[in-house]
Amino acid sequence: MSRIRFALAQINPVVGDIAGNSALIRDAVRDAANAHASVVAFPEMALTGYPIEDLAFSPDFVDESEEGIRVLAGQLDADGSGDIAVIVGFVRRAATPSFGGAIAHNSLAVLFGGEVHSTYDKQHLPNYSVFDEERVFVPGHEPLALSLGGVKVGFLICEDLWRDEGPVETLAEQGLDVVVVINASPFDRTKDDNRFRLLVRRARQFTAPVAYVNLVGGQDDLVFDGDSAVVDASGTVCARAQRFESTILYHDVVGTAGGSGLDVRGRTLNLLAPVITPDKDELDDIWAALVLGVRDYVTKNGFASVALGLSGGIDSAVCAVIAADAIGADRVFGVSMPSQWSSDHSQSDAADLANRLGCQYDVQPIGDLVGPFEQQLQLKGLAAENIQARARGMILMALSNQHGHLVLTTGNKSEIAVGYSTMYGDTVGGYAPLKDVPKTLVWELAEWRNRAATDKGDPAPIPQNSISKPPSAELRPGQTDQDSLPPYDVLDSILDRLIDRRESISTIVKAGFAQELVSHIAHLVSINEWKRRQGAIGPRITRMAFGRERRLPITVRRSTL
Amino acid sequence: MSRIRFALAQINPVVGDIAGNSALIRDAVRDAANAHASVVAFPEMALTGYPIEDLAFSPDFVDESEEGIRVLAGQLDADGSGDIAVIVGFVRRAATPSFGGAIAHNSLAVLFGGEVHSTYDKQHLPNYSVFDEERVFVPGHEPLALSLGGVKVGFLICEDLWRDEGPVETLAEQGLDVVVVINASPFDRTKDDNRFRLLVRRARQFTAPVAYVNLVGGQDDLVFDGDSAVVDASGTVCARAQRFESTILYHDVVGTAGGSGLDVRGRTLNLLAPVITPDKDELDDIWAALVLGVRDYVTKNGFASVALGLSGGIDSAVCAVIAADAIGADRVFGVSMPSQWSSDHSQSDAADLANRLGCQYDVQPIGDLVGPFEQQLQLKGLAAENIQARARGMILMALSNQHGHLVLTTGNKSEIAVGYSTMYGDTVGGYAPLKDVPKTLVWELAEWRNRAATDKGDPAPIPQNSISKPPSAELRPGQTDQDSLPPYDVLDSILDRLIDRRESISTIVKAGFAQELVSHIAHLVSINEWKRRQGAIGPRITRMAFGRERRLPITVRRSTL
Repeated sequence: MSRIRFALAQINPVVGDIAGNSALIRDAVRDAANAHASVVAFPEMALTGYPIEDLAFSPDFVDESEEGIRVLAGQLDADGSGDIAVIVGFVRRAATPSFGGAIAHNSLAVLFGGEVHSTYDKQHLPNYSVFDEERVFVPGHEPLALSLGGVKVGFLICEDLWRDEGPVETLAEQGLDVVVVINASPFDRTKDDNRFRLLVRRARQFTAPVAYVNLVGGQDDLVFDGDSAVVDASGTVCARAQRFESTILYHDVVGTAGGSGLDVRGRTLNLLAPVITPDKDELDDIWAALVLGVRDYVTKNGFASVALGLSGGIDSAVCAVIAADAIGADRVFGVSMPSQWSSDHSQSDAADLANRLGCQYDVQPIGDLVGPFEQQLQLKGLAAENIQARARGMILMALSNQHGHLVLTTGNKSEIAVGYSTMYGDTVGGYAPLKDVPKTLVWELAEWRNRAATDKGDPAPIPQNSISKPPSAELRPGQTDQDSLPPYDVLDSILDRLIDRRESISTIVKAGFAQELVSHIAHLVSINEWKRRQGAIGPRITRMAFGRERRLPITVRRSTL
Repeated sequence: MSRIRFALAQINPVVGDIAGNSALIRDAVRDAANAHASVVAFPEMALTGYPIEDLAFSPDFVDESEEGIRVLAGQLDADGSGDIAVIVGFVRRAATPSFGGAIAHNSLAVLFGGEVHSTYDKQHLPNYSVFDEERVFVPGHEPLALSLGGVKVGFLICEDLWRDEGPVETLAEQGLDVVVVINASPFDRTKDDNRFRLLVRRARQFTAPVAYVNLVGGQDDLVFDGDSAVVDASGTVCARAQRFESTILYHDVVGTAGGSGLDVRGRTLNLLAPVITPDKDELDDIWAALVLGVRDYVTKNGFASVALGLSGGIDSAVCAVIAADAIGADRVFGVSMPSQWSSDHSQSDAADLANRLGCQYDVQPIGDLVGPFEQQLQLKGLAAENIQARARGMILMALSNQHGHLVLTTGNKSEIAVGYSTMYGDTVGGYAPLKDVPKTLVWELAEWRNRAATDKGDPAPIPQNSISKPPSAELRPGQTDQDSLPPYDVLDSILDRLIDRRESISTIVKAGFAQELVSHIAHLVSINEWKRRQGAIGPRITRMAFGRERRLPITVRRSTL
């Protein structure tokens, strides 16, 4: 019997940055070595970042990954960690390309003694939801189990664990001491429960602990929450990492394989205090996901600051607070852009927010900018309304061009669903923090964030008036959102059923909504696909985000809608 | 021995419009009956349009398709065509959903006697290039062959024909008289050669003619070229339809099965003059694809007219002519939007084009519109340049809002690749005719289109000066594109290798291009992904179009670029 320490290193790589990600890996191995770990596991594609999408077709990139993993093995040895087994996800060239032209496997390497000791290729490639892995990877066919310092370890990559057939079956027959699963599993508000149910089921099936290590960080529209964990053979969670942060989780495993296999270092272990991070409030998790999504988009793309319009309304207020939590209020540049139709409170609420938050703040009235357009083009009605929104977009982009800000666009999921926005106006920007947040959830998050502040004795960042007042685009006198849309609680219920749950119109009507209203909403969703196709990306938090998760034609004609 | 007539009905359906597509199918069956056809084959997904993308997950839509095919069978019988075997592509509910949640097959129905006689489910689902069929469909497993009026017919759907294993093998062993393949195979400039090579190979393998019927029409970014054809057992093309048009191609097949199978009508046949449409010039095909793409986007989405900026340059001139060829010059609204930096020729060339084309024309100077922005925001340099492009975008969108025009954006593939454009400025619009046309090909097409006109004795539509002068964005005095970019022939050669051929940087350098230049271009392509993600769709004509065919992360960091 031997007892060795496993480290699950929940790191935040950047897609494509093999040198930078290698440095993260070396740092984490150093920390884990100091904590007496003999085995360190990193997430799926830790070397390359995830998802690499069609970069998997690039021969250059696959070469860089293969060279990178060899170099990393040598560096770890030179760092004095050659006797630690290091498990790293990377991209590996396949012997034969797929019919569709994929040239590489989604693989795992076991680094030991300065070399790539073994590899395992992912067998089940997810090709649904946000995943296109059948497109970009060649599936593997060989299972991998190794004895590491007397501990029999089985290896899986993410989707492999979710499918009953294939490598899970094979490993279940091998009497393993632990199964290590490396993952790149993005957050959504329902994911966590499913994930833990699965871990419990598999640990019982393997009659061995399952050590699950997941990426953390934002990558375009995806946010990886980490949530690395170990579930023991009885189905009990015996270690769980802090979510939404880079961290290392430790767990000691008892081996039955005697002295066989790789002779990893086996130090006298210090006593390990089990870390089991408790569950948090769902709103807390969603807020953390939004903040991480914004922070990583800003920093990984090299922006120093963000700019956004502050209308005095709830969406822009929540966006500004998310941005301040992500990168600091001093790097947030808010602009009030009042028109002749703007209420007094739109300006006072915006100023109040900027003051509470301590962000940079400017006022740029649009009257002198839109007047010439209205006169020269003799604009009326919708065209005149839209010019106001577009002038605001031009101001924000001009400030971005002058000062290098990333522009945040503040639209929420409900608006984006039904096209309640002005293209090239309020839709302008590189990132949309609330893209996947329905309006009713925006309000909940605002209340939650204010409460979180006051619970700590801090001032509430969001003015109560921005939360309480009826939402309005203020593009004409007395306008409110409810002139054009049903109340947001009704709208969001219908949208949740129609989009997130993919319910049929007849099912929604049976649930008590008016046929005419449901058909109208479904029609609006359908005809506004062209706007969404040109919209900024934003962090995904639901089980059905607009973008790569929901791919629908623009040109479509359905008599039933 | 019997001899019956097959009709291949190359129709242009609208995605989702089951009632409208059924009407197209009934009309074509009537025409084919008048031409004494006993079997009429329609393309893949003729009933639903293609691609339906994630509509395949909609239980409503799958129900509509299944109901639609039953109703169509009854209608055909009522039309007096119940004794014609009608082969139609549709969507069919699968007995068991896939792990990823797909609920339907991509299927083929044989309609006869007022009923759905048989179905076949596509077995090979393409999941590369522009296709996501592993995502949205459940694969089938059973082959289908039937005797129709004594002719033994095997059935395949599109990708099935391209794969050596599976249904092709099964059918090759059955001694068939003909194999009918229904397709939704989009145009690209290289596709046609590959397609015919495959047809020849399969016909020889089957020792039977292959009857290939393909969709025609534009659907978002895809253009289906039709090109339906019959290749006989010796590998000779014995019938071929006009491309890019709705049409019916006929071919008589001799049967060996005696009187068995479905008792389809067998009339005394009139003599069939073989139709073998000859190949055209490649530029002719590309032009036809662009025109069809624009026409179908405009008409299928219900627009009456298009608007675009006319700069006097080559891109906007070619776009205007494509639009005029697509929907008529009287429905094309061109706007010259000169600034203080606009050359005299930019206005005179734009006016000359409008005059030659006979399109609607307006002049809207931007000086009074951009001045207030420059002054209020104290803009300089790039920010001031971009304001000009954005003012033009605002004008076009205002005209769209006032008059209902679809705005066409005129950027070409070379510009879009390297991000040589102003977001929310010249990128504004719903459709981008030149999105997949490299700049050098824009010039070739302009010359070709002028020559095609003068060959017919018509005036050349594009002013020679727009073709000859050096391209310039005219956002500052004396600016030309070559201040920022290498000569377009060099740029397009590098882009073709980098993007279309997915060559590595080292391979391109070996072909004789400077390392620094290639790396710079690769870097520009990479950092401008965010612009492309927000760009309008446009017709695909190459083997690697931006959009669903090339899926890359926005956030990416590669030290080698």
